[in-house]
Amino acid sequence: MPYKIDETHDPSLESWVESANDPETDFPIQNLPLCRFAPPHEWGTPDHFGTRIGDKILDLTQLSYHVPLSAEGTGSPEEAQLFLGENISDLVPNLCGPLGHRLRRRIQSLLSASCPTETRSIVAEELFSAVECEFDHSHPCTDYTDFYASVFHATNVGSMFRPGNALLPNYKHIPIGYHGRASTVVASGTDIRRPMGQTAPAEEGGTPGFGPSKLFDYELEMGLVLGRGNQLGHPISIEEAEDHMLGLCLLNDWSARDFQKWEYQPLGPFLAKSFATSVSPYIVTMEALAPFRCPAFERPAGDPQPLPHLDSDHNRALGGFDITLEVHLASAQMRERGISPIRLSKGNFKDMYWTFAQMLAHHASNGCLMQPGDLLGSGTVSGEAKDSRGCLLELTWNGDAFGDPPKLVPGTDRTAIELPTGEERKFLADGDEVILKGYCEREGYRRIGFGECRGIVTPAVRS
Amino acid sequence: MPYKIDETHDPSLESWVESANDPETDFPIQNLPLCRFAPPHEWGTPDHFGTRIGDKILDLTQLSYHVPLSAEGTGSPEEAQLFLGENISDLVPNLCGPLGHRLRRRIQSLLSASCPTETRSIVAEELFSAVECEFDHSHPCTDYTDFYASVFHATNVGSMFRPGNALLPNYKHIPIGYHGRASTVVASGTDIRRPMGQTAPAEEGGTPGFGPSKLFDYELEMGLVLGRGNQLGHPISIEEAEDHMLGLCLLNDWSARDFQKWEYQPLGPFLAKSFATSVSPYIVTMEALAPFRCPAFERPAGDPQPLPHLDSDHNRALGGFDITLEVHLASAQMRERGISPIRLSKGNFKDMYWTFAQMLAHHASNGCLMQPGDLLGSGTVSGEAKDSRGCLLELTWNGDAFGDPPKLVPGTDRTAIELPTGEERKFLADGDEVILKGYCEREGYRRIGFGECRGIVTPAVRS
Repeated sequence: MPYKIDETHDPSLESWVESANDPETDFPIQNLPLCRFAPPHEWGTPDHFGTRIGDKILDLTQLSYHVPLSAEGTGSPEEAQLFLGENISDLVPNLCGPLGHRLRRRIQSLLSASCPTETRSIVAEELFSAVECEFDHSHPCTDYTDFYASVFHATNVGSMFRPGNALLPNYKHIPIGYHGRASTVVASGTDIRRPMGQTAPAEEGGTPGFGPSKLFDYELEMGLVLGRGNQLGHPISIEEAEDHMLGLCLLNDWSARDFQKWEYQPLGPFLAKSFATSVSPYIVTMEALAPFRCPAFERPAGDPQPLPHLDSDHNRALGGFDITLEVHLASAQMRERGISPIRLSKGNFKDMYWTFAQMLAHHASNGCLMQPGDLLGSGTVSGEAKDSRGCLLELTWNGDAFGDPPKLVPGTDRTAIELPTGEERKFLADGDEVILKGYCEREGYRRIGFGECRGIVTPAVRS
Repeated sequence: MPYKIDETHDPSLESWVESANDPETDFPIQNLPLCRFAPPHEWGTPDHFGTRIGDKILDLTQLSYHVPLSAEGTGSPEEAQLFLGENISDLVPNLCGPLGHRLRRRIQSLLSASCPTETRSIVAEELFSAVECEFDHSHPCTDYTDFYASVFHATNVGSMFRPGNALLPNYKHIPIGYHGRASTVVASGTDIRRPMGQTAPAEEGGTPGFGPSKLFDYELEMGLVLGRGNQLGHPISIEEAEDHMLGLCLLNDWSARDFQKWEYQPLGPFLAKSFATSVSPYIVTMEALAPFRCPAFERPAGDPQPLPHLDSDHNRALGGFDITLEVHLASAQMRERGISPIRLSKGNFKDMYWTFAQMLAHHASNGCLMQPGDLLGSGTVSGEAKDSRGCLLELTWNGDAFGDPPKLVPGTDRTAIELPTGEERKFLADGDEVILKGYCEREGYRRIGFGECRGIVTPAVRS
């Protein structure tokens, strides 16, 4: 069990950065997520290593030149060197385990209310307003894999794409996943161009269409960033899996449903997804999340148990994460008229059928080489409740587009979602901004949040 | 039309490197494929940039310190700098187009029989015996995509995996592909560990198995290495596609058929493929291949024409490649007894239903970011003839394992392949070495070859 709840989670800890003490903040001194960013005077090359505290970013790259970051003198010279600015790309592979833990304690002491005034003034020099910084995704991702770990999502989508054959026989034995496109993982805030693509012919044997996606959707997911890899040919057991996890972020797996339905057989989703995947800028570390671990999803009676290589006592007891997840939407018209985004759904990551530890153990079970910086998407997070569904396809039941009997939007008599402007949505329109949010709350602990993952849909370009 | 047949293809050109003048060599002075390697005294870090000539490797990284590689003084200083050893990783993005052409001419002049003796002696200092060099794959691959472009392969596999529903309705409209695992693309010669994995339950509703793959297969493919990318959100038209292609290599898409059949629905192949993909060490450039371009596959009467964004006059006339491809196999017993590998199949890359230009144009049609170094696999190259089938699954008709009526190995009354030792193969055994070969031949031109892509199957490790 690598993640202990310890004094770094003490809710009475306060920071001299005032905004971190706001009970509503995602980023108290108990969080300290990692990010890659550019301070305001260096926009264009977001390659500094930082942490978020309250409404500020602490520039760890710059700070490392003035203050030893390696655990108050206990670190080795090699370790001290690691934290020096030039070696940011070497950092991620070193932050799983003791070094990451020492860094967490060290940053916490530098930012805590009890930090001596002299040190505090050095640290304060490297604090920047987060809204003035430019972010990249937290680590250049080497390979990106997307899973399908919510049984509610899989059942809903399956029943639309394959009526009568929704959940395939492998689903409860294998954390189903597929390789995604690493080159198009983009940072929150990047505009998302509506993709062009092929769609099924109107009638069997007819000519397919080609044009901008008409069924453009988001998918609310969590992303896992690996901090340690394996050796090619050597599996990662479920017992070891947690030792390879650096932390989690929010992930939006943008999806063109019309392309997906036409292309996905027999080799899976491809162009329906490969144009963009957005991630939130912060890696919330496994350490910060320790108090919010929970049991893995309880399999209903009659469901098979996972095979031994995907099962462990620890995973059953604490493999899950209690993270509240929300999707908000603002149309261009709403933004122009100053109307706040509306919430489309609210779910929880603990409802996933498979845990990240199971996904990782499965992924590496064939000896596949996993590397620090690898990104694993959880698949759409949908719960049993209708308002916990993590994509429009499920919320509007495919916008009633594929000829199924129309299903209604939960709590309404409509098959579309009505916006405060009177606009309607079955799928995303140009100008729509999708905002994912995630946070953990537990009695006796400070709220730990993920910030936001944002993206605005821009019109297709017909080349 | 970027690739012209010009004087660099003149079959009368000879090299002062004797072995390059052997009519049987894959590597005459008209070829000059690119590779990443370590010379004999620097094993362990194969990061030199080189070219193969006859049975030698010319170390271009070292040579660049002694001889200007940039086109006999016509290049700019920036261009000259590019060829200096430190900048190898910057080279690939610059070798599509005029710079690559000038490099080809320059190397050709340095290696030609008419090269002055003084220069020749400088060049000779940087020539190493190829068998003593260590190779990496030609460029660290950023993203890897695998296609499924042979209609014969797709029909054969489809009829085994989905009896009665072999070729899906999208096949003739879309070059079907899926994202592969970039981290496990390995160089020819790397041992391939038999993977562990899940297999379907013996009876419906039963417990799946977990163990070493029993239906372990190779797939003969060609790989395309990109030399130029695009901008995120901007497609690459079929007219532009050839300008992005650096060259081709051999590719073995090792496949665990038992895992594949159980896992591939609905999101496509994953662990059945992700443990390893071997590539040959040389990128044979598009320029070297110019004389061997041929028309795209002639679609049978009644087949739909490709949509306009996947169709062009140039692609119809010259989108194909006339490349003979062979698979050879040697068991451990054969190697021990000094018996030469036997040929399992012989096909031709011109039989592919989709061209690489179509695959690339399709891939980027949604604005997906393509990058220099990206690898695109063609999918298994199988022709109409039974002995041109590019994998054991097709050659032995699934080793008769899935209960279909037994099909016979072409030209025999057996459902398995007999080796000269009396051993039998339906799928690969531990110790088997698979050797892919490829070469182009045309009256009036020198033979241009790809060398070999090799891999030996080693026993699974039960962790």
